[in-house]
Amino acid sequence: MKRYTLQLSYNGKHYFGWQRQPREISVQEIIETALTKLNHTHPVGVVGCGRTDTGVHAADYILHFDFTEIDNLEQFVQRLNRMLPRDIVIFETKEVAADFHARFDAKSRTYRYFIQTTKDCFNYEQRHYVHVPLDVAKMNEGAKLFIGKQDFTSFSKLHTDVKTNMCDVTSAKWVQTSEHELYFEITADRFLRNMVRAIVGTLLEVGIGKIQVADIATILEQKDRGKASSSAPGHALFLWEVKY
Amino acid sequence: MKRYTLQLSYNGKHYFGWQRQPREISVQEIIETALTKLNHTHPVGVVGCGRTDTGVHAADYILHFDFTEIDNLEQFVQRLNRMLPRDIVIFETKEVAADFHARFDAKSRTYRYFIQTTKDCFNYEQRHYVHVPLDVAKMNEGAKLFIGKQDFTSFSKLHTDVKTNMCDVTSAKWVQTSEHELYFEITADRFLRNMVRAIVGTLLEVGIGKIQVADIATILEQKDRGKASSSAPGHALFLWEVKY
Repeated sequence: MKRYTLQLSYNGKHYFGWQRQPREISVQEIIETALTKLNHTHPVGVVGCGRTDTGVHAADYILHFDFTEIDNLEQFVQRLNRMLPRDIVIFETKEVAADFHARFDAKSRTYRYFIQTTKDCFNYEQRHYVHVPLDVAKMNEGAKLFIGKQDFTSFSKLHTDVKTNMCDVTSAKWVQTSEHELYFEITADRFLRNMVRAIVGTLLEVGIGKIQVADIATILEQKDRGKASSSAPGHALFLWEVKY
Repeated sequence: MKRYTLQLSYNGKHYFGWQRQPREISVQEIIETALTKLNHTHPVGVVGCGRTDTGVHAADYILHFDFTEIDNLEQFVQRLNRMLPRDIVIFETKEVAADFHARFDAKSRTYRYFIQTTKDCFNYEQRHYVHVPLDVAKMNEGAKLFIGKQDFTSFSKLHTDVKTNMCDVTSAKWVQTSEHELYFEITADRFLRNMVRAIVGTLLEVGIGKIQVADIATILEQKDRGKASSSAPGHALFLWEVKY
């Protein structure tokens, strides 16, 4: 057996997130089913770089799996792409060290959240439409308050079974790409469940003037689940990059 | 009563084309229903610049309708957009001469057909995925043969109830926008039903080497419905521009 990585992207629209679940369809299950077929039906399990929630997309996702030696990596990718549905695309497979771990070895993860401020009939499935004016300068002021190693309990989901809620956010900013389009980009060593969507939801409330920039510091200090604003919807969120 | 135009775009995915039908949902019906509500339920009919088939999109569509005087055109557009679903967007409404006709006064119509030559999980709903290499130079040679005032019977659908199949194509070309993306753009005074999709289907067969460029001239000369290659699917076709 050798260890391999897959680099892929997926459209989360039709999936209940990355992670395999007993009663719902997941990206992980679809990929494991395809790899198992390529392995003459001997079950193949994969370990992903992280979980994504229902409906969330991944522009750049890394997973690892163990497999008998693959002779032709390029052909393997082609066969896999033909077996996988249109909404999961494999870019590359590589042999890695036997102890490589897609989740534990990831140094940072970057997410992007896309907003439109005008009605658009062609991109609405992957954009969040905000129909009130946004103060992007204020939203960027607020974004800065998330940078640093902090306790993100206020921006995590209830019933999260992690030991610590400390995350080291190294970058957080809004980028205006055109008159009616902008995205939020955030990089950290790790993210808690629902964290990006809770941060975006809060910054949008700053943008429309419902809360003040200074309120963000207060919410962070409170370390109280559910203190943040309501989460922005998942369909506009993309896992954008994973670094090792 | 005054005559007005609406400039709009729509995503055709969920509609059985532009034109109102007794048993299926159409873009025309949705817009007429919204205008009728704005007219205190007195029925309002609209006349579009042309028909589009099931699943075909319009990036730029013009229609006209008669209505009691509209005081605030901008507000009218806003109200209409709020009433219409996400996949229909109104850009502008204008008062026009009482004899203006959205269909008969249109001088030219331009369509674009979008192709991808790599699997893409985010844009597949509006792109046609071709997974074999295409000879774009040959496809452009073939495209030139469609230019001019010609009989397009071979590229029309059976049971079309028009008097003549003559169309004056003023431009037809393939444009490569990136390594794996290209589109076909065609402009004519009028188009027959299914014509763009039949032309694209035929040029794709030239691109993969299934037929020769010279075969296009033969197919055109035969003036025989159904001589063209099978039509390219509708989901990647956009009515792109209408000129008056």
